[in-house]
Amino acid sequence: MKDMPLSKVYQLLEPGPVVLLTTARKGHANIMAMSWHMMVEFEPPLVACIVSSGDHSFAALRATKECVIAIPALELAPIVVGIGNCSGRDVDKFKRFNLKQAPATCVAPPLVVECFANLECEVVDTHLVNKFNLFVLEVLKAWSDPAQKNPKTIHHHGYGRFAVDGEMIKLKSRMP
Amino acid sequence: MKDMPLSKVYQLLEPGPVVLLTTARKGHANIMAMSWHMMVEFEPPLVACIVSSGDHSFAALRATKECVIAIPALELAPIVVGIGNCSGRDVDKFKRFNLKQAPATCVAPPLVVECFANLECEVVDTHLVNKFNLFVLEVLKAWSDPAQKNPKTIHHHGYGRFAVDGEMIKLKSRMP
Repeated sequence: MKDMPLSKVYQLLEPGPVVLLTTARKGHANIMAMSWHMMVEFEPPLVACIVSSGDHSFAALRATKECVIAIPALELAPIVVGIGNCSGRDVDKFKRFNLKQAPATCVAPPLVVECFANLECEVVDTHLVNKFNLFVLEVLKAWSDPAQKNPKTIHHHGYGRFAVDGEMIKLKSRMP
Repeated sequence: MKDMPLSKVYQLLEPGPVVLLTTARKGHANIMAMSWHMMVEFEPPLVACIVSSGDHSFAALRATKECVIAIPALELAPIVVGIGNCSGRDVDKFKRFNLKQAPATCVAPPLVVECFANLECEVVDTHLVNKFNLFVLEVLKAWSDPAQKNPKTIHHHGYGRFAVDGEMIKLKSRMP
């Protein structure tokens, strides 16, 4: 995996792809699927996300204040749905879905080798965790997989329906 | 425009489309383009969004605590970019882009007739406004345009590059 400039991270998350979130606690890594996230600041990149207090990842994220956001391409869609439909309480999801972990450099949770981008994050604000399960993260380091060219991401419309990235259009704009 | 159940609102925003945000202050309506938003709760639907303090809409949103999120389909992409590249400080954007307003029922800012969905919102949390320009909104009422069938939305990748919704896939899932 190749180092990616932090200034470009927003271009990955702003389009709203389904992502995977890894956490680690007491030597045990877990992974969940997540669609409720948004950019908060360009650089250093800040990201807000909702991790439900019902999710097994919630306690690990709150306690360790570290996670990795891994972005899967279309080919992983069945695995993403599988990850979303079981809990780390009951099963080792990395094992069940045969996903390969790689060590991150700034945080304990692992990178997901099969994903085309991985973002190492730490929690920087917890003011809205109790009220809304809303965490604000800072991206400390970003990785991309140069072998995955023009990955298509998936966008959840509810109950397993996903819009796949289609045509890319380019309009003249001054907006970053 | 047709009434839409609040329980389905998340299916519109979770996929991460570029949206338009209308505000109104002192009898003057304004509109901006926005990609930094996420769902926070299913029902009543809560939505978080970032409106930069540099945006002309910021003061109106903070003061009136009301807005409408309007979702444009692909056909409006050039207008969306136009809206994003000028400021309500300098120009009446509804007039410049020839957009038709319709009155909302719960809030003062207008609906955008050309959009396939409109969400009337009030600000319900401002704890992170000063720190991150992050507003939490509650959707009070939702509208859809039944004449726009299977609208394709656009997802911003930066500098006027957008991924257009492509193929829809359906996988077996228990997740809402």
